[in-house]
Amino acid sequence: MSETRIPPAKDKPLFTPGPLTTSMTVKQAMLRDLGSRDFEFIRTVREIREKLLRTAGVSKESGYEAVLLQGSGTYGIEAVITCAVPRAGGKWLFVINGAYGDRMASIAGVHGIDHADLKYPENLPPVPADIDEKLRSDPAITAVAVVHCETTTGIINPIREIGEVVRRHGRTYFVDSMSAFGAVPFDFDACGIDFLVSSSNKCVEGVPGFCFVICRRESLLNTKGWSRTLCLDLLGQWQGLEKNGQFRFTPPTHALLAFNRALDELEMEGGAKGRAARYAANYRVLTDGMRRMGFEEYLPPELQGHIITSFRYPKHPRFDFEAFYSRLNDLGFVIYPGKVSNAECFRIGTIGRIFEGDMRAALRAIEQTVADMGVILPKK
Amino acid sequence: MSETRIPPAKDKPLFTPGPLTTSMTVKQAMLRDLGSRDFEFIRTVREIREKLLRTAGVSKESGYEAVLLQGSGTYGIEAVITCAVPRAGGKWLFVINGAYGDRMASIAGVHGIDHADLKYPENLPPVPADIDEKLRSDPAITAVAVVHCETTTGIINPIREIGEVVRRHGRTYFVDSMSAFGAVPFDFDACGIDFLVSSSNKCVEGVPGFCFVICRRESLLNTKGWSRTLCLDLLGQWQGLEKNGQFRFTPPTHALLAFNRALDELEMEGGAKGRAARYAANYRVLTDGMRRMGFEEYLPPELQGHIITSFRYPKHPRFDFEAFYSRLNDLGFVIYPGKVSNAECFRIGTIGRIFEGDMRAALRAIEQTVADMGVILPKK
Repeated sequence: MSETRIPPAKDKPLFTPGPLTTSMTVKQAMLRDLGSRDFEFIRTVREIREKLLRTAGVSKESGYEAVLLQGSGTYGIEAVITCAVPRAGGKWLFVINGAYGDRMASIAGVHGIDHADLKYPENLPPVPADIDEKLRSDPAITAVAVVHCETTTGIINPIREIGEVVRRHGRTYFVDSMSAFGAVPFDFDACGIDFLVSSSNKCVEGVPGFCFVICRRESLLNTKGWSRTLCLDLLGQWQGLEKNGQFRFTPPTHALLAFNRALDELEMEGGAKGRAARYAANYRVLTDGMRRMGFEEYLPPELQGHIITSFRYPKHPRFDFEAFYSRLNDLGFVIYPGKVSNAECFRIGTIGRIFEGDMRAALRAIEQTVADMGVILPKK
Repeated sequence: MSETRIPPAKDKPLFTPGPLTTSMTVKQAMLRDLGSRDFEFIRTVREIREKLLRTAGVSKESGYEAVLLQGSGTYGIEAVITCAVPRAGGKWLFVINGAYGDRMASIAGVHGIDHADLKYPENLPPVPADIDEKLRSDPAITAVAVVHCETTTGIINPIREIGEVVRRHGRTYFVDSMSAFGAVPFDFDACGIDFLVSSSNKCVEGVPGFCFVICRRESLLNTKGWSRTLCLDLLGQWQGLEKNGQFRFTPPTHALLAFNRALDELEMEGGAKGRAARYAANYRVLTDGMRRMGFEEYLPPELQGHIITSFRYPKHPRFDFEAFYSRLNDLGFVIYPGKVSNAECFRIGTIGRIFEGDMRAALRAIEQTVADMGVILPKK
């Protein structure tokens, strides 16, 4: 039996990059058991795939496909990295300015897939001209990958400008839009994206359990015979879904029911544009309040997205992150540790079913915690 | 928005191999949002791992570990197949008498892992002496895999007798207990199992979203450097869980909360032994009723487990499986198509939160459907 413990009346709001706080109606959609071959479930899967394309501003008619894949977001990244370059003669260019870019290179490494890495400091965006130069000088490169919002810092990378370069060179273009898709509007087609990955528990505000790949059908069909695995074979997965609307292997039926509802709620909020407005308001309340208290952001505001923000540890000797995190948790607020390699930071997310009022409550808790810890911040 | 449709008052009971009907209390455990690094969630993961070992009748002290892995059950199978033999000089022996055995061979094929296949007809159990002979004659084989309950037919394979042979030869032993674990009692240690895989939505009666591997710690530690992927790296996953109780990549938090509750409900029912008794009663009611109507099982009863049963299509010209399935579905009962390669069958599962009364209701619906279709069965 579980340790005896009384669950709280209300869960703590999550100021993390995900899993996020979701609406009660999204969670309630999971109070059902549907068979994975049942007609109603097959219809649910079809609706989800249509709504994802609509959210991306593309369609089957314009040559795009949505593929759902069991597992976390990283499974989708590994799927694209191991499917979108040929088994012989494939080579990735990874454009890296954070931990998620580095992870792509590690994945290629595990599979023995050739790759070149173009690395930038975590507080700088990639420069499209560098990619142009790299593609000019290395014709072996068949595909380019970049992270849309690097969750390490919260920086938004220039996926459109990079895409224009990649398209000019006729290479495959992969965008990891894990923490941006659904809340950072962009023109999918104009970016020239071949493969985009995000997951169920990010800005669509579903629960974790699967990821999805939105891709050009032609680029997907090109990958025949390239997959290095069975489970992460994107073309195989798509063919299964197309054949009879079913997954090849047991789908997370409950997470899919929740996601279908979450996509409806995204549409109700005005799609990616409407959601971006709420998250941007959360971000403004957060950064205004944090600056006022004397906290400093890691990134300059012009590079910072409204998804997640890295704040530097205060220099005061009484600041200790573990204690800060734990005290905030006791007050009912869950923040996130940092991931920047060359600076001590913590992160606060502004995504999920949270509003400006939640941000203000978090700010009050942070102010109290700082005071309780005896940390003195430089007043602005 | 979703097509306008009114959800039913009550979901159809599922007579499938999973996803299964689960208790409302298991589903209600998902009405929460916990952070993946939150203390309460970390405690939940720890409890689940402990309860899984207890259900298996083993412990950390006796040298066993439970590793949870995002994705469907097949991800767990691919994980073991790609982690449990060395990158150089590893070779599997797959003991096959159904589609899930065949799938293991396909996985090895995708990864270019050497394997020998010992194939039996789907209505016959593997013969331990054959495995002994095979291991004697092929010293290159480093590991042996067999399916516990072949869901293709519902046959229960002799995992203990095979394990004794494998242990005698000092090879690694992998049991795919996907649809049996938690409802078919066996002595883990006496079987000499190194790796066992099952998933969240089978006999533990949780919801789909992850699988788990129960393994000998020594065998797991042996696999250092052997994984062919990042996401399915069992040792890496275990090391992550051991380091700080967290998953390496976003876990399906809601499915895990449901599973923790499901494990409590399994203990309440008397563990695998108690659950086996309920499923066996379901199976008896089902087969008695089906035989009485004139249906014929694919397997002889002495080989048949109480998990899922394959029935031959009636020979009457008016029988059509699609119509039969669809009519039963309209009456509120979800059965499962067949998978036997050399005989036309359909399957009825007797697992999940279903009871003898549900089996009787299903039998009445089948009787009515057969009559409505004008199918005449041979009376016994």
